Amino acid sequence: MAEPTISSPSNPRVKTLGALRRRRIREETGTTLVEGYDELLLALDAGVVPVAIYGCPELMSSPRAWMVLTMHAERSGVELVRLGHRAFARVAYRDHPDGVLAVVPAPGYPLARLRLTPDPLVVIGERIEKPGNLGAVLRSADAAGAAAVISADPVTDWGNPNVIRASKATVFSVPVSAAPTEQVLAWVRERGLRLVATSPQAETDYLDQDYAAPVAVAVGAEDVGLSEAVLAAADARVRLPMAGRVNSLNVSTAAAVVLFEAVRQRRVAARGG
Amino acid sequence: MAEPTISSPSNPRVKTLGALRRRRIREETGTTLVEGYDELLLALDAGVVPVAIYGCPELMSSPRAWMVLTMHAERSGVELVRLGHRAFARVAYRDHPDGVLAVVPAPGYPLARLRLTPDPLVVIGERIEKPGNLGAVLRSADAAGAAAVISADPVTDWGNPNVIRASKATVFSVPVSAAPTEQVLAWVRERGLRLVATSPQAETDYLDQDYAAPVAVAVGAEDVGLSEAVLAAADARVRLPMAGRVNSLNVSTAAAVVLFEAVRQRRVAARGG
Repeated sequence: MAEPTISSPSNPRVKTLGALRRRRIREETGTTLVEGYDELLLALDAGVVPVAIYGCPELMSSPRAWMVLTMHAERSGVELVRLGHRAFARVAYRDHPDGVLAVVPAPGYPLARLRLTPDPLVVIGERIEKPGNLGAVLRSADAAGAAAVISADPVTDWGNPNVIRASKATVFSVPVSAAPTEQVLAWVRERGLRLVATSPQAETDYLDQDYAAPVAVAVGAEDVGLSEAVLAAADARVRLPMAGRVNSLNVSTAAAVVLFEAVRQRRVAARGG
Repeated sequence: MAEPTISSPSNPRVKTLGALRRRRIREETGTTLVEGYDELLLALDAGVVPVAIYGCPELMSSPRAWMVLTMHAERSGVELVRLGHRAFARVAYRDHPDGVLAVVPAPGYPLARLRLTPDPLVVIGERIEKPGNLGAVLRSADAAGAAAVISADPVTDWGNPNVIRASKATVFSVPVSAAPTEQVLAWVRERGLRLVATSPQAETDYLDQDYAAPVAVAVGAEDVGLSEAVLAAADARVRLPMAGRVNSLNVSTAAAVVLFEAVRQRRVAARGG
């Protein structure tokens, strides 16, 4: 496999990579960037086939990383491009880049193509804005064995490089989708999922709910929470107990607490409870 | 109450405020900055008495905020200083400042002065680096009714403005302390707390533990987890079930899941379980 070297930050190919920081370009091309050696390995492990891999050996902490990438490229036929450190700095978005970047197909399935496990546990995040929060929700969903994570009325795209990073690349292994809230609610009904909406204003405690049956847990935007449409469509509106001064948890924390309660209940049920 | 106006960003007082972004200056002066109207109200509500409040009415979203601050200053005798927008921009650390800033005593008690509730639930975070994570741990601790949060071998100080922000100012209402790990472990023993250490390498499931009795839950640094000292001293080492590809949760997520399991168990116990 050839290893062309690009040293100039103004090389057109480098400029194209930089353009993928923009959502519009990601959506037009259907691709995005994965940065970081660990993240790329997780993505490859999840079956992602990169369009191309870019490496800057001078920035890598060990020669092993470059060797592994070279072997992967040879075996898979994926193009591996060597970048000089000035060119790499132009495309990296991390503060301390480790010299690894790849262009990959943007993650996400159309709703209709999401395949669910039996008795699925699904997470719906509505209008979540911060990439770090979306990524954290995914990481918890991965840990809890969720069947899918759906972005309703999405503000931030799944291909956002900071979502990929915060998710530890689980955005490539946990099935994700994005659609208008109305379509997501219709999908939840079609699939026969019980919809549990979290809201600080709800009166029911989240513990007094059954999460062992097929269920979708909805969490809302950082500032305003879930929309009236989701709250009205929900089979139950639940709150987490708040013993202190603040009246809500971070959205990814709330999602994690409910997801792990679902894991607990499912284990109790499996033990014949 | 007089309202002096400072318009020049090079005013010495403005420079002194800017210096509080540095940990060394915070520790030398025993003070720190609270930025944001909501955060300041939470801090005041928690009993914080500011050294001085700085406001920039032009940046406030409504005239009400300035009025509330003026009334607070008049009632409490706390100095209120009006800043021009250029001077405010010099001291603000947010991207979109809302025109409210206060110098307050840095949060935190010496370990020996931490007063615990009966059957306390205590959180220990060791060498946690990211202010956002420390703040998120506090926010969950507040919600779970934790008696205290202790930073062991602290890397980031409780007065870090980003900790204050991420904690939604609960750093002023939840008792916090910071000390070398060795002292924290001695304190845990003296207080008769059961020490439960979380670790992805542990073999015991976190659900198979009793958190209703007096307990300290320890979570470790973002990258390396808990030190050998804490793991060795712990009465139990527990892991959260990981169904997916990533082998650990974000430290604040892990803390929240265990804390809310403690809340659940305590409720079951209170119901006479």
